Amino acid sequence: MSAESRIQELGLMLPPSVPPGGIYKPLVISGNIGYLSGHGPYLGDDKYITGRVGEDLTLGEGQEAARQVGLAILRTMKDQLGDLNKVGRIIKVLALVNSANDFCQQPQVINGFSELMKEVFGEDRGIGARSAMATNTLPGNIAVEIELIFELAE
Amino acid sequence: MSAESRIQELGLMLPPSVPPGGIYKPLVISGNIGYLSGHGPYLGDDKYITGRVGEDLTLGEGQEAARQVGLAILRTMKDQLGDLNKVGRIIKVLALVNSANDFCQQPQVINGFSELMKEVFGEDRGIGARSAMATNTLPGNIAVEIELIFELAE
Amino acid sequence: MSAESRIQELGLMLPPSVPPGGIYKPLVISGNIGYLSGHGPYLGDDKYITGRVGEDLTLGEGQEAARQVGLAILRTMKDQLGDLNKVGRIIKVLALVNSANDFCQQPQVINGFSELMKEVFGEDRGIGARSAMATNTLPGNIAVEIELIFELAE
Repeated sequence: MSAESRIQELGLMLPPSVPPGGIYKPLVISGNIGYLSGHGPYLGDDKYITGRVGEDLTLGEGQEAARQVGLAILRTMKDQLGDLNKVGRIIKVLALVNSANDFCQQPQVINGFSELMKEVFGEDRGIGARSAMATNTLPGNIAVEIELIFELAE
Repeated sequence: MSAESRIQELGLMLPPSVPPGGIYKPLVISGNIGYLSGHGPYLGDDKYITGRVGEDLTLGEGQEAARQVGLAILRTMKDQLGDLNKVGRIIKVLALVNSANDFCQQPQVINGFSELMKEVFGEDRGIGARSAMATNTLPGNIAVEIELIFELAE
Repeated sequence: MSAESRIQELGLMLPPSVPPGGIYKPLVISGNIGYLSGHGPYLGDDKYITGRVGEDLTLGEGQEAARQVGLAILRTMKDQLGDLNKVGRIIKVLALVNSANDFCQQPQVINGFSELMKEVFGEDRGIGARSAMATNTLPGNIAVEIELIFELAE
């Protein structure tokens, strides 16, 4: 089943296009590889899910934020490629979680993102290599920032 | 206009070659893609712009540091490739800002770098995908560290 | 000398296969490039070297942790490729050190990893571009997390 059909079937609501947060391109394609800029958990109307996980946000709220980053990334992919079916498969994900000093469950947080990708693209194409890491703060105090590399469909 | 001519026209002063900070290569080329190691805001004479933005440094000083990282990167590109005109275009930038816990303007800081790349290579070739992230500290307490991927000119 | 022979000659003990820490693949190959997920200093039996360098761990202990990440990465490469001789060369390393706010020797920590790669693959193939960065915490409070990109052998 195609990613576009899955979005419909799952009733997923993609947020509006993410406003540019600085001087960069949302996506650069080189050969058959797409490099996607860091995305936050964008909700629309210039609002993001913000806060430090383990301090302002619970693990569950962090997972929700990671899922929202995924929805924002799907929006950017759709905007930039015209169609999600042009995504071949995800190669690698780099994710930073805005973390309290004693918060250590970044992989569980980022699973919120990876689950969404699995639902939309399937396990084979939606799950890539991944690094879940932490940081003491993030732009606009967003809860999670994720960048990724993907292969274009042939 | 070529990058080399732009450097001259803008009167940019590149710092001396960055001394190796550990066991790594400044640049690795695979196919037509160059992978550049993390760079700091090198000033020459083993000096870097140091400090935590939002604590020791203002936003403006952070931007200046990000621009200095860009100058150090241009120096390494020139050293390694012989000529900046061999840079085709920037694909992706990963930037970490040494940040106070409540500092959230990392994208604005890194714009100091991206503006320089735009001046030197032009918008099309100088601006890639980008992730601006934060951290609580950096090697030698430098203010900003940036790595990037670029395409070689054909 | 081949990487497999070097492992033997050096008497290196690779840890058991790293248990999956979330929803991701240990390695994704696209064209002739391998993208390896973030790895920690895995010891076996679900145990990792943990703690913040400059606070819980000394520089030397951090270097030991970085070396242990390298051993875990070699294990994953061997598991996934069948044979370490299929690794052509390391292209780029991204390393985050779990760091006290005033700890600034991340490159020295990560040299513990890079030295191991040099021992196993030799300087030409084992040393790539590198970014050594810091963070306030990491998954499971591991001391170091490293991801890398490598070329497959022809």
